[in-house]
Amino acid sequence: MAEQTRFQGDDMTQPTPADKFTFGLWTVGWQGRDPFGDATREAIDPVESVHRLAELGAYGVTFHDDDLIPFGSDDSERERIIKRFQAALAETGLVVPMATTNLFTHPVFKDGGFTSNDRAVRRYALRKVMRNMDLAAELGAQTYVLWGGREGTEYDGSKDVRTALERYREGLDMLAQYSIDRGYGLKFALEPKPNEPRGDILLPTIGHAIAFIDSLEHRDMVGLNPEVGHEQMAGLNFLHGIAQALWHGKLFHIDLNGQRGIKYDQDLVFGHGDIVNAFFLVDLLEFGAADGGRAYTGPRHFDYKPSRTEDLDGVWASAAANMRTYLLLKERAAAFRADPRVAEARAAARYDELGVPTLGAGETYSDLLADRSSFEDFDVDAQAAKGGAFVQLNQLALEHLLGAR
Amino acid sequence: MAEQTRFQGDDMTQPTPADKFTFGLWTVGWQGRDPFGDATREAIDPVESVHRLAELGAYGVTFHDDDLIPFGSDDSERERIIKRFQAALAETGLVVPMATTNLFTHPVFKDGGFTSNDRAVRRYALRKVMRNMDLAAELGAQTYVLWGGREGTEYDGSKDVRTALERYREGLDMLAQYSIDRGYGLKFALEPKPNEPRGDILLPTIGHAIAFIDSLEHRDMVGLNPEVGHEQMAGLNFLHGIAQALWHGKLFHIDLNGQRGIKYDQDLVFGHGDIVNAFFLVDLLEFGAADGGRAYTGPRHFDYKPSRTEDLDGVWASAAANMRTYLLLKERAAAFRADPRVAEARAAARYDELGVPTLGAGETYSDLLADRSSFEDFDVDAQAAKGGAFVQLNQLALEHLLGAR
Amino acid sequence: MAEQTRFQGDDMTQPTPADKFTFGLWTVGWQGRDPFGDATREAIDPVESVHRLAELGAYGVTFHDDDLIPFGSDDSERERIIKRFQAALAETGLVVPMATTNLFTHPVFKDGGFTSNDRAVRRYALRKVMRNMDLAAELGAQTYVLWGGREGTEYDGSKDVRTALERYREGLDMLAQYSIDRGYGLKFALEPKPNEPRGDILLPTIGHAIAFIDSLEHRDMVGLNPEVGHEQMAGLNFLHGIAQALWHGKLFHIDLNGQRGIKYDQDLVFGHGDIVNAFFLVDLLEFGAADGGRAYTGPRHFDYKPSRTEDLDGVWASAAANMRTYLLLKERAAAFRADPRVAEARAAARYDELGVPTLGAGETYSDLLADRSSFEDFDVDAQAAKGGAFVQLNQLALEHLLGAR
Amino acid sequence: MAEQTRFQGDDMTQPTPADKFTFGLWTVGWQGRDPFGDATREAIDPVESVHRLAELGAYGVTFHDDDLIPFGSDDSERERIIKRFQAALAETGLVVPMATTNLFTHPVFKDGGFTSNDRAVRRYALRKVMRNMDLAAELGAQTYVLWGGREGTEYDGSKDVRTALERYREGLDMLAQYSIDRGYGLKFALEPKPNEPRGDILLPTIGHAIAFIDSLEHRDMVGLNPEVGHEQMAGLNFLHGIAQALWHGKLFHIDLNGQRGIKYDQDLVFGHGDIVNAFFLVDLLEFGAADGGRAYTGPRHFDYKPSRTEDLDGVWASAAANMRTYLLLKERAAAFRADPRVAEARAAARYDELGVPTLGAGETYSDLLADRSSFEDFDVDAQAAKGGAFVQLNQLALEHLLGAR
Repeated sequence: MAEQTRFQGDDMTQPTPADKFTFGLWTVGWQGRDPFGDATREAIDPVESVHRLAELGAYGVTFHDDDLIPFGSDDSERERIIKRFQAALAETGLVVPMATTNLFTHPVFKDGGFTSNDRAVRRYALRKVMRNMDLAAELGAQTYVLWGGREGTEYDGSKDVRTALERYREGLDMLAQYSIDRGYGLKFALEPKPNEPRGDILLPTIGHAIAFIDSLEHRDMVGLNPEVGHEQMAGLNFLHGIAQALWHGKLFHIDLNGQRGIKYDQDLVFGHGDIVNAFFLVDLLEFGAADGGRAYTGPRHFDYKPSRTEDLDGVWASAAANMRTYLLLKERAAAFRADPRVAEARAAARYDELGVPTLGAGETYSDLLADRSSFEDFDVDAQAAKGGAFVQLNQLALEHLLGAR
Repeated sequence: MAEQTRFQGDDMTQPTPADKFTFGLWTVGWQGRDPFGDATREAIDPVESVHRLAELGAYGVTFHDDDLIPFGSDDSERERIIKRFQAALAETGLVVPMATTNLFTHPVFKDGGFTSNDRAVRRYALRKVMRNMDLAAELGAQTYVLWGGREGTEYDGSKDVRTALERYREGLDMLAQYSIDRGYGLKFALEPKPNEPRGDILLPTIGHAIAFIDSLEHRDMVGLNPEVGHEQMAGLNFLHGIAQALWHGKLFHIDLNGQRGIKYDQDLVFGHGDIVNAFFLVDLLEFGAADGGRAYTGPRHFDYKPSRTEDLDGVWASAAANMRTYLLLKERAAAFRADPRVAEARAAARYDELGVPTLGAGETYSDLLADRSSFEDFDVDAQAAKGGAFVQLNQLALEHLLGAR
Repeated sequence: MAEQTRFQGDDMTQPTPADKFTFGLWTVGWQGRDPFGDATREAIDPVESVHRLAELGAYGVTFHDDDLIPFGSDDSERERIIKRFQAALAETGLVVPMATTNLFTHPVFKDGGFTSNDRAVRRYALRKVMRNMDLAAELGAQTYVLWGGREGTEYDGSKDVRTALERYREGLDMLAQYSIDRGYGLKFALEPKPNEPRGDILLPTIGHAIAFIDSLEHRDMVGLNPEVGHEQMAGLNFLHGIAQALWHGKLFHIDLNGQRGIKYDQDLVFGHGDIVNAFFLVDLLEFGAADGGRAYTGPRHFDYKPSRTEDLDGVWASAAANMRTYLLLKERAAAFRADPRVAEARAAARYDELGVPTLGAGETYSDLLADRSSFEDFDVDAQAAKGGAFVQLNQLALEHLLGAR
Repeated sequence: MAEQTRFQGDDMTQPTPADKFTFGLWTVGWQGRDPFGDATREAIDPVESVHRLAELGAYGVTFHDDDLIPFGSDDSERERIIKRFQAALAETGLVVPMATTNLFTHPVFKDGGFTSNDRAVRRYALRKVMRNMDLAAELGAQTYVLWGGREGTEYDGSKDVRTALERYREGLDMLAQYSIDRGYGLKFALEPKPNEPRGDILLPTIGHAIAFIDSLEHRDMVGLNPEVGHEQMAGLNFLHGIAQALWHGKLFHIDLNGQRGIKYDQDLVFGHGDIVNAFFLVDLLEFGAADGGRAYTGPRHFDYKPSRTEDLDGVWASAAANMRTYLLLKERAAAFRADPRVAEARAAARYDELGVPTLGAGETYSDLLADRSSFEDFDVDAQAAKGGAFVQLNQLALEHLLGAR
């Protein structure tokens, strides 16, 4: 699909499909069941969600198999549902760039899907994934997300993690081969999370997942779907994680939402958590390429939950809030980048000097060893006295964020 | 060095060099300066530390360049110190299996070593590392640790993390080449940490570091030196991290200590933090190989700080406590493994079934798709009703830990 | 009820009613529904739970109104259920020392009970509490627990916390008056929690709740029901919290369970979290009175959840594990206290010197000002050189915990 | 001192003394020594700090005894320093509304001041406090802050917390009496912190400290000095804590700074941490009184550390940034409050309904019991269907924060 273009004079905070905003059916459709409470909202028909999201300016929708087709539906019911869904997509122009599998709700997955100690469960899980890959491909998805939320333990003796990683790898290798052989063209995106619903989840962070991927047979087909809140649940800097994922060429998809520190998974609206980190994230995603363009060109996927205090008006207001906040941050990031004082502050912080290789062109360690100015004659105290000027740069960024510059 | 053998009847909790316990000079030598307080203890002469550690049963010592040779010493002073240190090693039989560089104390490193925005600092840092690699090789070290504690930021706009990773890679590639060319035979071990002393440190976890290593030119020479407390500062399960590092073949060294949850870096005695996680860790390290032997054969390195409330008696008592706790846990792990009730409980938990590949020998996804018992005829509800039996297994482990079985 | 006595030669780890172990019906009865998954176990008939817990050696059971009498039951159904429950109590000898109200499951409580922005909800909540107080009193309960899990916010602008505390106070004052007037003799125990299911819960810690209680009209009737995991979710030391609650005379009840650090509420078996903190807690509860007896004499209430991976065997095994772990820790604490080396180590740590008032008998600040030895002639450096000897004491405790002393 | 008035047309983000901004000498004077690194900046003469802060628009300065008068100074040196400092105050018009004691830097305090196991240390600590109270009173301070950063433990067996609280109370009672008898008119403000530099600090949160204060003899003279980062280090909502402190009448002073989640104490510039929480905090402090005025009228005290990467320019830029950020937030909070859409959104959220007592005027629980509409005839499902409208209100606040409304 060709990217649409915005024109000067457009309301930059009114979302359009060119912004590539997508939503999971399970996000707006969340009924508010939590560990201590029952549902507070009725189920929403997925077709209704498609229409409402299209009206709000979204680009696409995504789903777990069971979001669209209730677990246990027979084949004819399944077909009927899919047809109806495809019709809604056709009417609205919404696309399905990503799909995923629910390997966590049914109690059969209580000890995991790909890494359950029980082999029969592992086989069932792989079948369930393949079945939905068929549908994902049929609906034109390019990315297949795998969140292994039940792959983990509560107790350190429950499983040998090395063995569990073997099974994880076995599963991924088989699924990649399946996509290749069927010509689905799907790429896989692993979604790390440190804990909840398991005490400790395997592949808990962006880093662990990339390391794991490097051991796979079809490692080029597998990347990440990092989620804001999941990294922040480990106290990690999401911006740093995304930057490292980009550096490894592994940012295949992204889940945007909000989290307020290390606690249970909140899935707030994007920006309703750490807004400063969100500002720099949008700056990176939108303007972080070498040419100042998008560093990541895929969908901006909101994986959030409308708070269970809210009714349906709140659901749609919160969906819109995700997009509007993103666009407000984009506007501020553009202004930040264009501000000559920022250029000055970055110069003072030697921001660009980090881009200059430490060794000169053609220089080797022998040359470095021979360069007395680098060590023997280096005035460490004079050097140490130079200020970083980071606080001024941060204040400028903050003031841009606050719309005060 | 040939491993020494213990004999039946030995006191299993009395450390011997065969246990491979090592200590950094900076650990027992820590003077107790913290962010809010001055030193509470006098400096200890490194030669004194060598002797005391040898008496306590240690196998080796390790050091940062500046631990042994005060920053700014001239060459003759440097030579004198090294000779004296070598004499102490010779007298005691202690080895130096690892060395590392201090790239964090001097203010010149306030914005990092390899990834400082300032290129002159980066060059100086590389020179400082090479200089100590020379000494490490001379003293027979096999492993060179790199803790990039100052590589990071407080503010999200201070540096482009992708660029910083480029510089990190450049530095590592050069140092690996240097070791190769000089025939030093050094392997490098990166030590991840999520934060402190920087707000966010690059390569914050085991996972991020392995991912990074996979991008290096000499990736086979580079592995990890994970530290108990550092992973736990991100709320991550250290046992899981070590298992993943082993699975990737990247556990080159290990830092043992104690931490009580997500807070500042405590560096307590090993076992004085999460003793249950420590129990399973010792079990893995000592008995986790396929043959029931050591899954990791390198030094058991204690990177801890004697609490600043303690005097010198407390320093040596705490050093001994690290080793004794480790050996107590080893004893209990051996008993745990030998207990037939544990075998029963593991069978109930289908612990070994995780080792059975999900696909049968020669089976492909086509066979799996054709196996109706795996999906179409699979009774998910009957399967879901089976208990994991993890809680019984954990209680057994706990009772072994408590010496109650 | 008279306390039963244990005799020498009894198995000290076999629970008896004298141990005062109690369980909520909702604990063993938890079906395993979590934020990402459906129930994994069938409901258990409360009468069955009463019998099973009695067989395991428990002293009593506790309940939320809706645990016993399903929400929406009519009066005759209610009566039938209560009679059947009372019969089970009579058969088994189990008591009901505590009861509480479910103000969190039904969606009507989505914004809280006593502090919902909606006044009608607040009135309904108070009625629901009073109704169950009637039953609690009828069943002989002495303590009425109030966990305000839904009293809180996700967003800082949702409510004025000062106003919310006014409503909280209003509700508590009314309920206390009700208990007084009806002659129920109930004491109230507030249960703090920092977050989950709300983003931030009011009265988040032991401290906040005691402070609040001091502002109540009937403050003597209101104390705390602290829970291990709830304090640890804020990274706080549970032992310290309990000690402060005891110091204020506010430990009215206690919820024992396990938590592994700052993350979602795990409700593991007691001791399956931080076992060292649990050891010192049992030591305090059992032997922390001035005379070496129980510092807290009420029920030892396990508020845990059998992991959802477990079947019914796991449920009862986990219930037993709570009690056995407690008793193992009690045994070890007794040995710790009896060990003459502990007395020596405490002397070295000047443990008892903390009990000596800082001012002498009759001494005033004027005397202190006149005492030159306290300041003008005080040798701070000599004093500073004295070691705390805390690490040796801790190692001794750890070795007692490990059954190695 | 009469409050100065701002006039329309003034630059609202240019600080003036009427804003009541104060700074500790130790904040701008921090030399950047951290647990892993040496000082990066020269010491600043306190007199220089007074002048610079005055130029920047501050209202006052505060100090620990040892900030102003180096530890160990003799009496004549002490007098000389005080005179010079007083002269600077007179020249600049800066006031000293608060002072405090350093009971943490010298190694003699390694196990605490008021609660050290060593009685001689406790006596010395009290003397040191009294001595600086004399100076505080002489300089016109109204508030005396007590941060018990060393009052705590690393190990659960190191001290009986109940006994420690006894000593804490003894010390506080004596100091209050001293202030009364001398006619100093000082109020005391305790500053809670959960950990660092001790593993667990006594009175870890706002709540614990208020509870403790309620047990003091002169409880009316003792309140709190809460610090943004300290509560956030426990994952607690600072706004909620301040609201509770205000509700108890215990907000005697406040420490403003920035923290990025649960980790070591960062002491960033105010607003460089959680800016959303900071926005609502400023809103409460400035406009949260019943009449829309200041809910807290004392100094706005910045207790932050200029990052150790910064030189002196960064020090003063960061000092200015604290004030400017505060004033920007104040501006946005005023606009938020004045926006009619906010009034609408609050109405939808029934924000003001929380202010309506749950019982009507004169209504008792008997009336409530008789009101069938409150329970028997209450339609819980209809009620549950009403939306909270909190997300819309939060988005409005966020957009005001971003200057987009």
